[in-house]
Amino acid sequence: MGFNIGIVGATGVTGEVTLRILSERHFPVAKLRLFASLRSAGQIISWAEQDWTVEALDDADFSGLDLIISATDSAVARQFAPKMVAAGCIVIDQSSAFRGEPSVPLVVPEINAGDLAAHQGIVSGPNCTTAVAIMAVAPLHQAFGVDSVVSSSYQAISGRGRDGISEFVETSRAALDQLEALRGHEPIDLPAPVQFPHHSAFNLFPHCEEFADGCTTSTEEEKMQAEMRKMLHAPDLHVHATAVRVPVVVGHTTSLMLSLKTAATVAEVQDAITRFPGTNLLDEPWSRRYPTPLACAGIDDVLIGRVREVPFVNNGISLIASGDNLRKGNALNAIQVAELLLGISGDNND
Amino acid sequence: MGFNIGIVGATGVTGEVTLRILSERHFPVAKLRLFASLRSAGQIISWAEQDWTVEALDDADFSGLDLIISATDSAVARQFAPKMVAAGCIVIDQSSAFRGEPSVPLVVPEINAGDLAAHQGIVSGPNCTTAVAIMAVAPLHQAFGVDSVVSSSYQAISGRGRDGISEFVETSRAALDQLEALRGHEPIDLPAPVQFPHHSAFNLFPHCEEFADGCTTSTEEEKMQAEMRKMLHAPDLHVHATAVRVPVVVGHTTSLMLSLKTAATVAEVQDAITRFPGTNLLDEPWSRRYPTPLACAGIDDVLIGRVREVPFVNNGISLIASGDNLRKGNALNAIQVAELLLGISGDNND
Repeated sequence: MGFNIGIVGATGVTGEVTLRILSERHFPVAKLRLFASLRSAGQIISWAEQDWTVEALDDADFSGLDLIISATDSAVARQFAPKMVAAGCIVIDQSSAFRGEPSVPLVVPEINAGDLAAHQGIVSGPNCTTAVAIMAVAPLHQAFGVDSVVSSSYQAISGRGRDGISEFVETSRAALDQLEALRGHEPIDLPAPVQFPHHSAFNLFPHCEEFADGCTTSTEEEKMQAEMRKMLHAPDLHVHATAVRVPVVVGHTTSLMLSLKTAATVAEVQDAITRFPGTNLLDEPWSRRYPTPLACAGIDDVLIGRVREVPFVNNGISLIASGDNLRKGNALNAIQVAELLLGISGDNND
Repeated sequence: MGFNIGIVGATGVTGEVTLRILSERHFPVAKLRLFASLRSAGQIISWAEQDWTVEALDDADFSGLDLIISATDSAVARQFAPKMVAAGCIVIDQSSAFRGEPSVPLVVPEINAGDLAAHQGIVSGPNCTTAVAIMAVAPLHQAFGVDSVVSSSYQAISGRGRDGISEFVETSRAALDQLEALRGHEPIDLPAPVQFPHHSAFNLFPHCEEFADGCTTSTEEEKMQAEMRKMLHAPDLHVHATAVRVPVVVGHTTSLMLSLKTAATVAEVQDAITRFPGTNLLDEPWSRRYPTPLACAGIDDVLIGRVREVPFVNNGISLIASGDNLRKGNALNAIQVAELLLGISGDNND
């Protein structure tokens, strides 16, 4: 007994983590099909003690698949998702292609699973930074209402996929022998970055995704307000995001300042977070307990801590959240959605 | 012709940068004396084509020195600065020991050089993150008034000195061979951190300096409001800081959200920054021009960019600033103060 599942982008880091989580959760897979670009077709991927051959997305006939989890760029998603739906599959699309469409639910199961009922074949997952941030915002929105959110992010390198990780690791290795250059005492001797707008090794830059010409807000930063509004059913929510790439491999962190609709103490905020599924409150900074990327990498919960009042902001609360950008920010969320759509209990999670 | 100058903490990274900047600016040094802890006494440091022997601070007789630049912890500063003043020296103290004392000017020359006139022997320099942030806040405070500041920082490893850099470089080298651990797929195999509360390699943590037991704000975070209020002569300024250590060697960055007293457009804000000495506006993100640590390391200017309006905050403006934490955050600022106190023109800067 099981379902016929397709994974698109199977050779990428997200595909790898998707397969890993399917195993962890004992997802009932009857038949598995893996898809990627023509370049990667023919690769053999080992999963559940079997070898699976990657198929080229271009030639694929999707019929017979119950559900496809797709992690590609938006252009590829726009091209192929309609074909998948026409072939009778449900598509969980991780790209930004359909997130804004009224007919496409944008879902984080802990927050708005009810929106799934209206799907017409495609369900979108949120941007990876939005996914981490909203796991901190949603408990407060449900308990107290949230008027506005200011986010400064610390986004991991793996958001740029396998090629991004490779460039980062290689240049980090080279840069470690150039300490005087990292201190600004001599020019740095590294190949020009290809995957990032600047050197990623031991550096950071307020630039994720793209800036349109003359535009001072990046596409990454634009997404957060629209996506949070849709998922929280809060059309008036204000969000201002600053997206910064940092030299961390896995784990997106965000420093959030919220203005709540009704006053709440730190203890009440902590309690709302503790009661919310999928979050783990780590908030004893004097005992070195707070979110870090290394602590959130490889786990399902989003870690939340450093909860403080901001006395000069109306019902102001600041906090920090860290989540695995490849898990809750991507593959885990998609699989949680798949479980809901297919009526599978995720309780057999290891 | 020149002055007799003492450098305390001469063997540390700040001492090293102080000597470097004295050379760069052709600071008129007649006699140089270098001080450090007993452990480092006897070390030979080469400067201006001469060898200089480091003296133990404990035994030192400071008489004959015109000015001492001191980079130690607060306890050491409290012990020795009064002796230096008693010996007739002016002390520029980089620790937090005296910053709050009404009789001690806390000075960033571009901002409040006038406060130096009232000194009684000791002048304090600001915390390194405050120094970077205030170079962005001050131009807007002068032009429009600033009501409040929210800061999320990205603070470099070198804030923890030479031992911090060593631990970071060594563990980064080891961690690069543990990519699966950095992805959270297996435990990381690194020695327990000594200089930092958590592993610093390819990680980050919202913890700089200390948290008192049960206290949710770190000493690092507490400083920013008091120091900005004092330097800007703005006793009502509100500041909320979140301090985060990131895996970058040199260059503190901060993401700031300001509420101005009077409305200003992005162009007006940019103009105020451009006219302010010691800052460099880099604000064409679509051309990849914005502040980064690697760009600010080794230079004097604080880089400012990503200026945007925050429509839901009263006269809200967000921006990013990056500055060399060892230069404007420390040694450069101290030498600029020394130049003012001794009537030296800093214009012979290379």
